[in-house]
Amino acid sequence: MLRYQRILVSCVLALSLLLAVSFSAECKKSLGARTLVPPCPVWVIGSYDSTGTPNMMTASWVGICCSDPPSVTVSLTKSRYSYGNIMASRAFTVNIPSEAYAKETAFFGSVSGRDLDKFAATGLNHVGSELVNAPYLAEFPLVVECRLVQTVEVGSHTMFIGEIVDVKANEDILGEGDRLDPLKLQGFLFFPGSGNFYSTGGSIGTIRDLQAEIER
Amino acid sequence: MLRYQRILVSCVLALSLLLAVSFSAECKKSLGARTLVPPCPVWVIGSYDSTGTPNMMTASWVGICCSDPPSVTVSLTKSRYSYGNIMASRAFTVNIPSEAYAKETAFFGSVSGRDLDKFAATGLNHVGSELVNAPYLAEFPLVVECRLVQTVEVGSHTMFIGEIVDVKANEDILGEGDRLDPLKLQGFLFFPGSGNFYSTGGSIGTIRDLQAEIER
Repeated sequence: MLRYQRILVSCVLALSLLLAVSFSAECKKSLGARTLVPPCPVWVIGSYDSTGTPNMMTASWVGICCSDPPSVTVSLTKSRYSYGNIMASRAFTVNIPSEAYAKETAFFGSVSGRDLDKFAATGLNHVGSELVNAPYLAEFPLVVECRLVQTVEVGSHTMFIGEIVDVKANEDILGEGDRLDPLKLQGFLFFPGSGNFYSTGGSIGTIRDLQAEIER
Repeated sequence: MLRYQRILVSCVLALSLLLAVSFSAECKKSLGARTLVPPCPVWVIGSYDSTGTPNMMTASWVGICCSDPPSVTVSLTKSRYSYGNIMASRAFTVNIPSEAYAKETAFFGSVSGRDLDKFAATGLNHVGSELVNAPYLAEFPLVVECRLVQTVEVGSHTMFIGEIVDVKANEDILGEGDRLDPLKLQGFLFFPGSGNFYSTGGSIGTIRDLQAEIER
């Protein structure tokens, strides 16, 4: 009798687990085929046009795409002023804003450099990179100089794959051993589907410690 | 005399501005050609191997790369178990963790599915997508089903470009009108160069309001 009870209990437990999993999976709501894959970085892309006029534009369809050579990808539509710039100059910079420059970053993404001088409007200053044919922002705490190595057509967007030639940081965002300090950088994020920027919070632990909690 | 004074003051001001800008630019410290471009998303990539065994791995060299069709890019080295999986199955899922799953996410990135069953180790459950040939995580709040459309060789990494077929969310991370609520999602980030995960903080304003502060 005890044996049958045990089998019964096991069956009930297994069924409950199955129901729990399928409920958890089924209660997911379909939102459709959309670019709702948060969070996204917020990068300001610097480039020169054919007359050497500098421009900055904000992009979030971006990411690191390779370790060796260290490379990033930035996706732009052909209609963007920066598209033609980067195609011609074969270079761009990635400028990482701190929260102090959230206004300027929002502005860089809302108007075209074809229509207006974004430096005059924001009061920010550009510096010509000595390594690649592109300008970077003097005031932003972290800049990455890239040479264009490949373009990939995906649909509405063209991916610009840039090899990182150098990363330059303001001293005040560096910690011990010249390591980037995320809390000093005070970077921020974009959430697709929301019209807001979000700040970076505190550390939730080292990856090593977190994984050890599972391995234990 | 007053005229000369004005000219002198203007010259001094211009020189100070020039010095300030060049100082600001020059005090940037070179960190070399490295992938120090924070912050990075933390995505868990789901795939099947050739025998139909599911696997999950954590990736941060990722991003949205196109609006139409909605697409993402995920970069992996050829040595990864998931590399062969995605090449063969032509599909993957992107699973976005909340902070509650930081431990499991760290673990998924630290061991290979060749060596161990990551589901048994973490107690998490996989669900087969009905839209693409890949598994997703039942417990993670947001999952994105992708079919592989293109691969791009960059160097150490291969970029997998996936077209988003559907996005599925747990009801408890949705706000009004089924919009993703970043504060309910409680996602987190990776900072290259740091070994930590960082939480998402609060909103620092709508992009519209921020840009209006410059336009005003």
